[in-house]
Amino acid sequence: MIVHEKNYQTVWMEGQSVFMIDQNKLPFEFEIHECKTYWDSCMAITDMTVRGAGAIGAAAGYAMAQAYLEAPEDDIDTFVTEARADIESTRPTARNLFYAVEKVFEAGKVSRVNATITAQKIAAADAEDSWKIGQYGNELIKKSTRILTHCNAGWLAFVDYGTALSPIYQAHKSGKEVFVYVDETRPRGQGARLTAWELQQQGVPHLIIPDNAAASLMADKKIDLIIVGADRIARNGDVANKIGTYGCAVLAHYHQIPFYVAAPGSTFDMECASGKDIIIEHRNAEEVLFQDGMDANHNRVRIRIASPGSNAYNPAFDITPARLITGIITEKGIIKAHAQSIKAVLKE
Amino acid sequence: MIVHEKNYQTVWMEGQSVFMIDQNKLPFEFEIHECKTYWDSCMAITDMTVRGAGAIGAAAGYAMAQAYLEAPEDDIDTFVTEARADIESTRPTARNLFYAVEKVFEAGKVSRVNATITAQKIAAADAEDSWKIGQYGNELIKKSTRILTHCNAGWLAFVDYGTALSPIYQAHKSGKEVFVYVDETRPRGQGARLTAWELQQQGVPHLIIPDNAAASLMADKKIDLIIVGADRIARNGDVANKIGTYGCAVLAHYHQIPFYVAAPGSTFDMECASGKDIIIEHRNAEEVLFQDGMDANHNRVRIRIASPGSNAYNPAFDITPARLITGIITEKGIIKAHAQSIKAVLKE
Repeated sequence: MIVHEKNYQTVWMEGQSVFMIDQNKLPFEFEIHECKTYWDSCMAITDMTVRGAGAIGAAAGYAMAQAYLEAPEDDIDTFVTEARADIESTRPTARNLFYAVEKVFEAGKVSRVNATITAQKIAAADAEDSWKIGQYGNELIKKSTRILTHCNAGWLAFVDYGTALSPIYQAHKSGKEVFVYVDETRPRGQGARLTAWELQQQGVPHLIIPDNAAASLMADKKIDLIIVGADRIARNGDVANKIGTYGCAVLAHYHQIPFYVAAPGSTFDMECASGKDIIIEHRNAEEVLFQDGMDANHNRVRIRIASPGSNAYNPAFDITPARLITGIITEKGIIKAHAQSIKAVLKE
Repeated sequence: MIVHEKNYQTVWMEGQSVFMIDQNKLPFEFEIHECKTYWDSCMAITDMTVRGAGAIGAAAGYAMAQAYLEAPEDDIDTFVTEARADIESTRPTARNLFYAVEKVFEAGKVSRVNATITAQKIAAADAEDSWKIGQYGNELIKKSTRILTHCNAGWLAFVDYGTALSPIYQAHKSGKEVFVYVDETRPRGQGARLTAWELQQQGVPHLIIPDNAAASLMADKKIDLIIVGADRIARNGDVANKIGTYGCAVLAHYHQIPFYVAAPGSTFDMECASGKDIIIEHRNAEEVLFQDGMDANHNRVRIRIASPGSNAYNPAFDITPARLITGIITEKGIIKAHAQSIKAVLKE
């Protein structure tokens, strides 16, 4: 996608380094972060310099490839096995991470360069899948449509284009009147910071809302369609995604608004029978109690926003059961959120 | 209620001045703000130095009494009529404001001192009603109960005790194991700042949660009961309260969790047939796009938290239809949220 008239992807590999748009600096600064070692890449995933299911997957695949490049000639196996464990322990919820790490780990058994080629292929496939998701999802969007989205499942969450936002970009380009209500997505504000920033770069009209305002917008019939992303989808169609997604789905159900999840095949985890098997990451309470942003002098500042003596509960994801999902927009078409449809599409 | 071992009310009048706990400075500083004129009091209501239905009502009644005390002998009528319009235009949604202003305005026609006496009576009645609401509400709380609340309907929102929190304080005092999940309540954070602060002062165990985490807590069966306040209740039982209340009610309905509203008689507006007649205040988008808090040097700082080029939609309240409300906890008992019950209790 275009930023300041230049084409960028969210994460890419050149030589032995992994480069990524620093998402902790957005939307206030646009900066490229270089990870020279697999360990640098692990840190970048953990501290959310790179975030979003697809982008994490690509970065993790690259990190695994970096590990192969770094491994000492006389003990490749031990090194890459330890590296794999390091990479897999960065973030527990995104399916794409484990998918990419495994593929690259296996590929590296053939040769070091094969690991890098495979990591590059995974990233390219991620971008291509996102593009196709945009094409299928665009079919759901009428001439004039008001869409609610939660968190960021845009191109910053993938290598390019995104999932939930990809149909919106294609609809906008094709001249449809799309308007997006962006859940700010507490506590980290990926909606207010990343989705809003993306939509603005691409010229898509939008407004940020507090997450808790979505219900009244639905009651006021101001939302025609909801599209969100997914971090992991179980065999039965249950979806793990950013905290607040489940609430949106219940509200959509109550107000009879179509609720779609957009995700590529790499997000499906056939080893998870249902949402109950998905590990939910709990993050530091400080994410809720503190907030960072830009002060009047354009400095990045972190401030306490909650009562100093109180603690917070901060689950990063929730589970939306399949029964609340109207459909899943994949790179192979829009499918129902149930086991047979998922199996059929993954087999193709 | 007790703060730093001293007993305080949220708002009170001494001589010609109105005093109030400065709620914009909480939870970081505890400071008393003095309003020397009715106009000072109007400003304090507008800028939310005092906020919450009951506290606004008491402050508005006091402001009206101040206007009578300030009015020039030769033209009392013009002065107080203009003052009334000023006071009534500070905040549009809280029923209590209009209730108090009218009562004091009428009382002042008898004598200036009668206006002040009436304003004092309204404040005293507010505290007494809150106490009774606590007694009735306590009956809903079992030995061990996990309660969700939204925004701040504690003693800071009233003259004393509060509405939604009053039953919690009484339950806690009587030795029940109450645990409170506090919706942080974006965008102004009254939950994270005021409710959490109050609960901490009184020693009630609690955790702050992002508003969007409530749904998954409900799905995980971690919430037994929801109690919220109200800014205005229509004749049919529809409730206007802080943005996000309606979403909580829909989620409670879906998860079959009892959803109670706690409010005194002064919150009922018999001239409103239903929620459709309640004017919803829309506040400045900057409340969503910026956040204030305390930096590492203990200075109050305001930071931008959203993408600089984007705008926000910021309705301050929403309407919860009567059908989603399990009951309304009033100072005369717990009633059903429908026209006959409301009429009966207000007539008593």
